[in-house]
Amino acid sequence: MSSSSSSFPAVLTCKAAVAWGPGQPLVIEEVEVSPPQPMEIRVKVVSTSLCRSDLSAWETQAIFPRIFGHEASGVVESVGPGVTEFSEGDHVLTLFTGECKTCRHCTSGKSNMCQVLGLERKGVMHSDQKTRFSIKGKPIYHYCAVSSFSEYTVVHSGCAVKVSLAVPLEKICLLSCGVAAGLGAAWNVADISEGSTVVIYGLGTVGLSVAQGAKVRGASKIIGVDINPEKSEIAKTFGITHFVNPKECSESIQQVINRITDGGADYAFECIGDTGMITTALQSCCQGWGLTVTLGVPKVNPELTAHYGILLSGRTLRGSLFGGWKPKSDLPSLVDMYTKKEIQIDEYITHNISFEDINQAFTLMKEGKCLRCVIHLPA
Amino acid sequence: MSSSSSSFPAVLTCKAAVAWGPGQPLVIEEVEVSPPQPMEIRVKVVSTSLCRSDLSAWETQAIFPRIFGHEASGVVESVGPGVTEFSEGDHVLTLFTGECKTCRHCTSGKSNMCQVLGLERKGVMHSDQKTRFSIKGKPIYHYCAVSSFSEYTVVHSGCAVKVSLAVPLEKICLLSCGVAAGLGAAWNVADISEGSTVVIYGLGTVGLSVAQGAKVRGASKIIGVDINPEKSEIAKTFGITHFVNPKECSESIQQVINRITDGGADYAFECIGDTGMITTALQSCCQGWGLTVTLGVPKVNPELTAHYGILLSGRTLRGSLFGGWKPKSDLPSLVDMYTKKEIQIDEYITHNISFEDINQAFTLMKEGKCLRCVIHLPA
Repeated sequence: MSSSSSSFPAVLTCKAAVAWGPGQPLVIEEVEVSPPQPMEIRVKVVSTSLCRSDLSAWETQAIFPRIFGHEASGVVESVGPGVTEFSEGDHVLTLFTGECKTCRHCTSGKSNMCQVLGLERKGVMHSDQKTRFSIKGKPIYHYCAVSSFSEYTVVHSGCAVKVSLAVPLEKICLLSCGVAAGLGAAWNVADISEGSTVVIYGLGTVGLSVAQGAKVRGASKIIGVDINPEKSEIAKTFGITHFVNPKECSESIQQVINRITDGGADYAFECIGDTGMITTALQSCCQGWGLTVTLGVPKVNPELTAHYGILLSGRTLRGSLFGGWKPKSDLPSLVDMYTKKEIQIDEYITHNISFEDINQAFTLMKEGKCLRCVIHLPA
Repeated sequence: MSSSSSSFPAVLTCKAAVAWGPGQPLVIEEVEVSPPQPMEIRVKVVSTSLCRSDLSAWETQAIFPRIFGHEASGVVESVGPGVTEFSEGDHVLTLFTGECKTCRHCTSGKSNMCQVLGLERKGVMHSDQKTRFSIKGKPIYHYCAVSSFSEYTVVHSGCAVKVSLAVPLEKICLLSCGVAAGLGAAWNVADISEGSTVVIYGLGTVGLSVAQGAKVRGASKIIGVDINPEKSEIAKTFGITHFVNPKECSESIQQVINRITDGGADYAFECIGDTGMITTALQSCCQGWGLTVTLGVPKVNPELTAHYGILLSGRTLRGSLFGGWKPKSDLPSLVDMYTKKEIQIDEYITHNISFEDINQAFTLMKEGKCLRCVIHLPA
């Protein structure tokens, strides 16, 4: 990369993996990265992992050219006007959903749906609805206001959280989305109790992080459901006690779960992103107090359906975004737990990939061959 | 009625309002009522009110001939073998969903979905899958194991609860279903907090009992939504602070609610029995912590649908059967509250009707002209 020699941040040029159209392999391009605007920081990305929602958005959304990536760690390169919380050299995790700490939701104590820095869907920055990336003057759009598939990126200071210099950035980037989302769904959203029974649909990183959360809480049975038989072994690492492959069942999945749990699980988690599984998840949890948590982001058919009677008999359906964590306030405690070896992160990293090979990560995820691929940016 | 002079209960003959086919006016017939079988009691019905689910089942279900009615009070006429909890002359409320006090759910402390005496849908008694009513040997089917549109009925002893002789049976029959269902949805299922905002879809007895429950809890805004403008005035009696008639709105209902509540209500209740309203209810409650409770039993289209994103942003959808009350354990406390004037019941009774005029109650409810019609059986 190159930047001006001014002591104030200037436009810099660096390499970024640009998606030019839906499903098209990313192309490493030279992009210009604007200096951080008021309350923004520019971050040198160290590690970024590929999450399924990057893949889904890349395959299905219409905003291009675009730089994906939202699960990342890095080092602050420069700060914009008004930023006092960060300094050059700070280590940070990026946040795909931010926290302004002042809106009704941030101050509520019961919501992480920041009304100022919440999910950004238009590919621009929150503050001015513009991009910070361009190629020869042509704007390149952001993803979730993070865009970490770039050597440098600009994020709002409310969309990053400082972490200790001692923590390995190439591991904890997974806390920036998937692992935290799963642990939070288990702990904050479902509040799994000791001795309870849990069924998890979809054993990707999110589902296996729910499993880890359930294991930490002392669940007695943690049933994993996945059509990929290769998940069976690795699932044990994260606490799965029973593996169910729907393709190998002669009865319905809910019948299998009801038998294993003697009348339905206490908690069910939909981590596939298949709205058609919501009914199955609800039917496989218990009347009276069964809770189904939906975390998945569907690629197709965003409408879920369920027979009213499944709910009437005392079941609950609850959505979970980022596991209910207030990202800025709560992530440091998860980093601490990792440092103290109270939670596992490393075990989700099945592949380490260099930046120029980033398309391999997309292929591996499409083929179900990985949990997390960590993409390492040039030092 | 006439019965044998034996000291043991015998078959008796009495008048009952029999439904011979879907939507056909009830016919007062002479029916034979069997003696109570083991763990059953035979009850002389004093008062029974018409609930919308009687109407829906009468219009849409296939089990006939049948005796409807499930919201009732009466006096124990005789008891079957093994019954020690009740004696002749006891005053009781009938329970359309029973409580065995021994199954996994009854002993869980968190469910009212008794696995032994729960909702009975086949028109027969729980114990032997047979009827206790007949006309010249031909079985007449039950409804919800109660069938109170009869001078005498037989119910399982787990489907009745004893009440004080001092409490007026012609009023408290409303606690047997509708009023208790609404209060419980507000208190047990939603657990409405002081100062919160509430929106209620459908201002029948159940919806207006949710309103009363919200008022008792000190909700700051209680918005009632109904297409019947005549509900506007009576709704105030039960705590409704804002009345919204969708037919008179120039914007969507959820927009109206979002404006009144500054971003969505804390709680929404679907009391119409229209699965198509679930999405509207979810959209009119707040991101992050909004809870939609569904109480209604739909006449058509039992499948509810919702966009996954509405849930993902931290909303919860929960079903409520009989307001989460354990019927036998909890109803006495509601009767007590009525006695101490802590809750209103009388105000829901818009019509008192004699048994022979029972079809008037069906007409009034179909036309939306009543809250509760109490039907008085002959003394």
